[in-house]
Amino acid sequence: MTEGKIDFPVAQVRRYLEPGPIVLVSSAWRGERNIMTMGWHTVMEFTPALIGCVIAAGNHSFELVRRSRECVINLPTVALLDATVGIGNCSGADVDKFEKFKLTAAPAQKVKAPLIVECHANFECKLKDDALVERYNFFIFEVVKAHVARRPKYPRTLHYTGDGAFMLSGKIVSRRGQFRPEML
Amino acid sequence: MTEGKIDFPVAQVRRYLEPGPIVLVSSAWRGERNIMTMGWHTVMEFTPALIGCVIAAGNHSFELVRRSRECVINLPTVALLDATVGIGNCSGADVDKFEKFKLTAAPAQKVKAPLIVECHANFECKLKDDALVERYNFFIFEVVKAHVARRPKYPRTLHYTGDGAFMLSGKIVSRRGQFRPEML
Repeated sequence: MTEGKIDFPVAQVRRYLEPGPIVLVSSAWRGERNIMTMGWHTVMEFTPALIGCVIAAGNHSFELVRRSRECVINLPTVALLDATVGIGNCSGADVDKFEKFKLTAAPAQKVKAPLIVECHANFECKLKDDALVERYNFFIFEVVKAHVARRPKYPRTLHYTGDGAFMLSGKIVSRRGQFRPEML
Repeated sequence: MTEGKIDFPVAQVRRYLEPGPIVLVSSAWRGERNIMTMGWHTVMEFTPALIGCVIAAGNHSFELVRRSRECVINLPTVALLDATVGIGNCSGADVDKFEKFKLTAAPAQKVKAPLIVECHANFECKLKDDALVERYNFFIFEVVKAHVARRPKYPRTLHYTGDGAFMLSGKIVSRRGQFRPEML
């Protein structure tokens, strides 16, 4: 079900998340599943591979994630722009978003939340620290398994600027030669 | 010193930070000043305007920020790509980065850390919560004042992918019409 994707080192997920794309968070709890659109996240550590993110308590996904203590962070590309917008503008309390947006759920390996097959990458996450969930809705996850499509090397990701406008990822420039080796 | 920039509503800084750009953090403490390059940050709340970010303890800026409990988050554009790389590959323990990279420091209004004039935007920040500093080097700041250049509307920002490679921000597409009004 994740054909075309390879295992990817979890210590390197910054490669896909540090540029700041909108992601889709899938979750499951007691027979229910859901997807939410998320823009507020950051890498926090390489090893363990930590991601911090805000899942507002008003989201239907909040309770699924909080109770299951798991989720999958999926990386959509420009082909999924309209689905991504749609997912962020309806509630899992009313619809099954996999069906509504014709997305394929595949079993994950280390969590019960489903992978979204159509996304470029899928990061299986377990809740590492909930110290700031009550105060800020801020979850700290550890990425325990990563699946990434072989191609393209640089997917065209979506970056939300507010007010309904997205920045699409642009060209890649390397400055590798200007880095100290230990900074790479 | 911030000519060409206007006051910007702090509740809307997501406009510039949610897309995930590399930023420059300026700080000052007891006559010393510094700049660091930072890629690990996220918006956490609109009001108060909260930004969470990782400033690793090994950085010279760590103590300046921790002791002063303030910083400025500055938004560089593609014109500052080489300076941004250079700033991330040397230490404030050895050089004054404003001088080395020919950047202009201007006084901020609500914090003692300096603004970097050449950046597209400057967000003055006060430390709001240090609960996760010890465990994760994770600082939660409140943006207390924002300055943004009038033009261009969408600056060409830098998004780090690791391994010395940057993604430059690409074209803007609007899906405003597909949003529920309360989601805008």
